[in-house]
Amino acid sequence: MTAPLADQLDIVIPTIRNLDFLEEWRPFFQPYHLIIVQDGDPTKKIHVPEGYDYELYNRNDIERILGDKAWAISFKDSACRCFGFMVSKKKYIYTIDDDCFVAKDPSGKPINVLEQHIKNLLTPSTPFFFNTLYDPYREGADFVRGYPFSLREGVPTATSHGLWLNIPDYDAPTQMVKPKERNQRYVDAVMTVPKGTLYPMCGMNLAFDRELIGAAMYFGLMGEGQPIGRYDDMWAGWCTKVICDHLGVGCKTGLPYVWHSKASNPFTNLRKEYKGIFWQEEIIPFFQNLTLSKASTNVEDCYLELADKVRKGLGHIDPYFSKLADGMVAWIEGWRLLNPPVASA
Amino acid sequence: MTAPLADQLDIVIPTIRNLDFLEEWRPFFQPYHLIIVQDGDPTKKIHVPEGYDYELYNRNDIERILGDKAWAISFKDSACRCFGFMVSKKKYIYTIDDDCFVAKDPSGKPINVLEQHIKNLLTPSTPFFFNTLYDPYREGADFVRGYPFSLREGVPTATSHGLWLNIPDYDAPTQMVKPKERNQRYVDAVMTVPKGTLYPMCGMNLAFDRELIGAAMYFGLMGEGQPIGRYDDMWAGWCTKVICDHLGVGCKTGLPYVWHSKASNPFTNLRKEYKGIFWQEEIIPFFQNLTLSKASTNVEDCYLELADKVRKGLGHIDPYFSKLADGMVAWIEGWRLLNPPVASA
Repeated sequence: MTAPLADQLDIVIPTIRNLDFLEEWRPFFQPYHLIIVQDGDPTKKIHVPEGYDYELYNRNDIERILGDKAWAISFKDSACRCFGFMVSKKKYIYTIDDDCFVAKDPSGKPINVLEQHIKNLLTPSTPFFFNTLYDPYREGADFVRGYPFSLREGVPTATSHGLWLNIPDYDAPTQMVKPKERNQRYVDAVMTVPKGTLYPMCGMNLAFDRELIGAAMYFGLMGEGQPIGRYDDMWAGWCTKVICDHLGVGCKTGLPYVWHSKASNPFTNLRKEYKGIFWQEEIIPFFQNLTLSKASTNVEDCYLELADKVRKGLGHIDPYFSKLADGMVAWIEGWRLLNPPVASA
Repeated sequence: MTAPLADQLDIVIPTIRNLDFLEEWRPFFQPYHLIIVQDGDPTKKIHVPEGYDYELYNRNDIERILGDKAWAISFKDSACRCFGFMVSKKKYIYTIDDDCFVAKDPSGKPINVLEQHIKNLLTPSTPFFFNTLYDPYREGADFVRGYPFSLREGVPTATSHGLWLNIPDYDAPTQMVKPKERNQRYVDAVMTVPKGTLYPMCGMNLAFDRELIGAAMYFGLMGEGQPIGRYDDMWAGWCTKVICDHLGVGCKTGLPYVWHSKASNPFTNLRKEYKGIFWQEEIIPFFQNLTLSKASTNVEDCYLELADKVRKGLGHIDPYFSKLADGMVAWIEGWRLLNPPVASA
């Protein structure tokens, strides 16, 4: 079993329980370094299966490391995972939920999620024109007739969004209406989400290039003390997509699949989500119509400009968005603290 | 075997040879009416397999029916198929090339292309936001978490673009570089091409709603006397996509597959294509940046406005584009001749 980029990729896992799910992932994950972000009670001991190389951060660690910026990292919500993105020193991140297991492809072969995510990240994206045979860089595929030759080099890939077999990632209302629906369709495709198009990015099975987009991969203010939950990854998805579009880098979605084992409680989910269900009707047009200035040429600057636009453009919905804009600024301050610019000669 | 919409859909086939390929399609196509557009020598007799209900038009018929507008229909090029779109009286069109046969799905079952295209056309499209589980209206699928509820009704579907197993639809340079490449990947997905994104629409396996978009499904000036070939469907694809985006209707791509039996000659193709390969580098940005006026609220008006913009915006590339703009206008005149507006009370 080869482990591509084992020295350049960290696996980030937010958890409140023992990480027994890592037993099933051992053949694929053991060569990689884990960053575990322990949510909830910091005195609780998290058991990590033997043989894994890991670092673990609980709330006390986050407070100690980030000091007066620690409030920007959510508590009692898996949004805390973004702390792991910040402390990593690697070029690539893969993040996965602890209720996701190894899925099988239609031939019955266990799917090596990292191998596929890394393929997605290391091959270019094609956000400017749609290729009807999907990812043109996959074996056995190419650009079809009519695809402009000037666009065939593609652009760097910033994110690789993987999908889920079994329990689909539905909101509470859909869960309630279709409690028995299971995703059994294996779609053998990877594609670039076109420029100018937003997508609902789920944090369950997600890889990204930390250098290209890490500073925008903030999962917002969710959980304890916040009026909203289950929009952490959506927030990061909207922000990263508009910034990727602005910077001319790509977001892919499709393969690889994980096996999502169990549906979370739809009643609990509805309580967390319901403001988001209203708010997204305004937030999404806000992001669809947003343009960043030409002066913002790197992710951090883009993100600070975006924080400012969020404050001005969404503040009228709820005071929460002013606090979120503050959180976005604090996040960048924390990011800079832990990721100081490399001194140039 | 049920035949959905058998009284509302015509199958349009451009051909220069005997239609023996219809034998294989008999279980699926025989319930439908065929419109055969005979290309090339009108004295040649085209054999249509027994038992099919059809009408056949050769060049003499086109001249007789369209008179001084007949020049706008290409000769010695499969672009002539659009004459069939014009003479049809049905709501839906399916068009297929005569070197396309019945493909099989991964379980070995022959694919009923019309059944799938009709499903695609009768269910809504979702051009305003990307759904990561693909077509949300398919059985076993839905909108994922974070998809705005206000967009879940979708919009009417204008076109359904099907794909090809075996010989992929590559341009001449790609055919030359990869002579042995075959498409063996069955991707079990249908999706809406997002608003604002162009795609290379291939005419080999294509269905559309004639009422919604038929008047823009002109395949341009190709073949005899023209400087370009193999861009007929691309032209129609660019034009229909910008008009669909303007009118708020959708274009889907993906299933169903046909079995494309043989690659056309790459040298012949290169001769036909090579100007297009240069020109598309300017044409595509032209279409990407094009906006139609609010005054154009139906397909015919949109198409006439587009013809005007083509004349002004692409005329500098080559005199061909002025002639093409004339052709677009003549096409609409022909369309109106054969499809007079229904008198209102």
